[in-house]
Amino acid sequence: MKPQAIAVDLGGTSLRAARIDHEGMIHDRAEVLTKSQEGPEAVLDQIATIVSTIKERATDIEILGVGVSSPGPLDTTRGVALGLPTIKGFDNYPLLATLRDRLKMPVRLENDAIAAAIGEWRHGAGLGFANLVYVTVSTGIGGGVIVDNHVLRGRQGMACHIGHMVLVPNGTRCNCGNLGCLEAYASGPAFADRAKLRSLNNSASSLHSLGQNLKAESIFAAAKAGDRLALELVGEEINFLATGFISLAHLFSPDVIIMGGGLSNAFDLLSPEIAAYFTKFAMPAFKTIQIVRAKLAGNSGLVGAAALTFEAL
Amino acid sequence: MKPQAIAVDLGGTSLRAARIDHEGMIHDRAEVLTKSQEGPEAVLDQIATIVSTIKERATDIEILGVGVSSPGPLDTTRGVALGLPTIKGFDNYPLLATLRDRLKMPVRLENDAIAAAIGEWRHGAGLGFANLVYVTVSTGIGGGVIVDNHVLRGRQGMACHIGHMVLVPNGTRCNCGNLGCLEAYASGPAFADRAKLRSLNNSASSLHSLGQNLKAESIFAAAKAGDRLALELVGEEINFLATGFISLAHLFSPDVIIMGGGLSNAFDLLSPEIAAYFTKFAMPAFKTIQIVRAKLAGNSGLVGAAALTFEAL
Repeated sequence: MKPQAIAVDLGGTSLRAARIDHEGMIHDRAEVLTKSQEGPEAVLDQIATIVSTIKERATDIEILGVGVSSPGPLDTTRGVALGLPTIKGFDNYPLLATLRDRLKMPVRLENDAIAAAIGEWRHGAGLGFANLVYVTVSTGIGGGVIVDNHVLRGRQGMACHIGHMVLVPNGTRCNCGNLGCLEAYASGPAFADRAKLRSLNNSASSLHSLGQNLKAESIFAAAKAGDRLALELVGEEINFLATGFISLAHLFSPDVIIMGGGLSNAFDLLSPEIAAYFTKFAMPAFKTIQIVRAKLAGNSGLVGAAALTFEAL
Repeated sequence: MKPQAIAVDLGGTSLRAARIDHEGMIHDRAEVLTKSQEGPEAVLDQIATIVSTIKERATDIEILGVGVSSPGPLDTTRGVALGLPTIKGFDNYPLLATLRDRLKMPVRLENDAIAAAIGEWRHGAGLGFANLVYVTVSTGIGGGVIVDNHVLRGRQGMACHIGHMVLVPNGTRCNCGNLGCLEAYASGPAFADRAKLRSLNNSASSLHSLGQNLKAESIFAAAKAGDRLALELVGEEINFLATGFISLAHLFSPDVIIMGGGLSNAFDLLSPEIAAYFTKFAMPAFKTIQIVRAKLAGNSGLVGAAALTFEAL
């Protein structure tokens, strides 16, 4: 049997690990709730334990190394976490060096959205393409980009902060501090917040009664049922995403734009109109860029982190 | 003496050529007005003639090849001009193959803004950096990007249409057909058009009397003299550029953003406030990105085209 890799996805809510082969197939997995409020030592203990668990269950299989997908901001050129907003205590923390020391195995560290882009590129919707943009639209908006078969990393490994491209100059304040970011308009929470506000005085809409429980899923469900306000809100969301995607197309010239994250569950509702927007407004050479749904869903990051491990060795 | 290259810059107004060494030094140059309305044959004749002229004057110097910088849209993966807006007749025209056939020398073809980025990277303001964004702000807005020491080209070699990143969703119609592009707001003509409109009924401004002769230079000159309207217009231009530059920073994570083109003549007026905008609004890791002026001015494209020739051989 060929050697395999262990991938770790460090999330603010859950810590996941999987044993993955060189073709991106997942053979084993484990998951625990991240001790996100207890500091780096506790989290590092969790990572060491989950990696051991997976490793011990892999009898007779050589494990090449561990690929870790982590939320940013992360300086991957130095392997340093610069202050993870969802996991306490990782401020200027030498994450890569500590992991190598703890795990006694080769370790690769990557930003979660870039890892997910690599996963989709190597084993998902981007397979066979030399140029792709992966966009995850969820609680936040992030992404990763491959151009000319090269994974874009940039200064400090911090390229592809797609959610923090400006959509509206001098617009809504984003969590990042900037004004008018795509994330501040088109993320799941931003979409739901608009719906909460607009349904407040609109008792004709089925969204009205949901109040503060209103989520992106509720809007999509109401739109499918023909609710006029929901359709209007979905139309606006499409406009924001399509505008952002056209900018990404003109900047990166991808063969394909891959949409992942929670909002891609409504891909069938969103994509025809995003494609129509491209046909209408993209520059001629960019009109035919395909927009597709991520194939590996919640596993893009794990699969990408494993792929990195194979490439490094 | 080491071998040298001939660079050709095919512009809508003038056709320029130069003999350049591997250190980016220009040793000879020639220029003619482009026969932009007479079709490809006439222009190809002009290119052949100007290359011969330069070559014949280079006695005892080996010429490795010719690097051609051309306006787009250009599919550089196939070497095909897709319809140059400023030079008639180049529609789906096999420019690279025809040039190789005519010149009987190795030829490299590159989009003009990418060639200029390469020039600044190899021998200008970007020397020594692994990551840079070059932006030219002039009649149009274009650019080229280097990430991880890799020149971004993308599908059909069409990456880095920086001017066609959307600045204002559903905004002003751009020449490209899209709505709200950066170019439609921040290019020289867009800047001047705003000034013409706003000075029309503002006789207190020194811009008022210029009428249709008003150009970007006039606004900068008036702003330096303290004209209130001109200062307001320059402030808006800074806001547009800074917003665009922040998006580029978050997307590409460059070490440095290099500004070229006609409007970079006012770099001293623009850059302190663009830098202040970065300090205020860029995400923490991006606040320290330097914004610098292009060093090679009008020669960036020629020097880049020559550099390509050396790299290819």
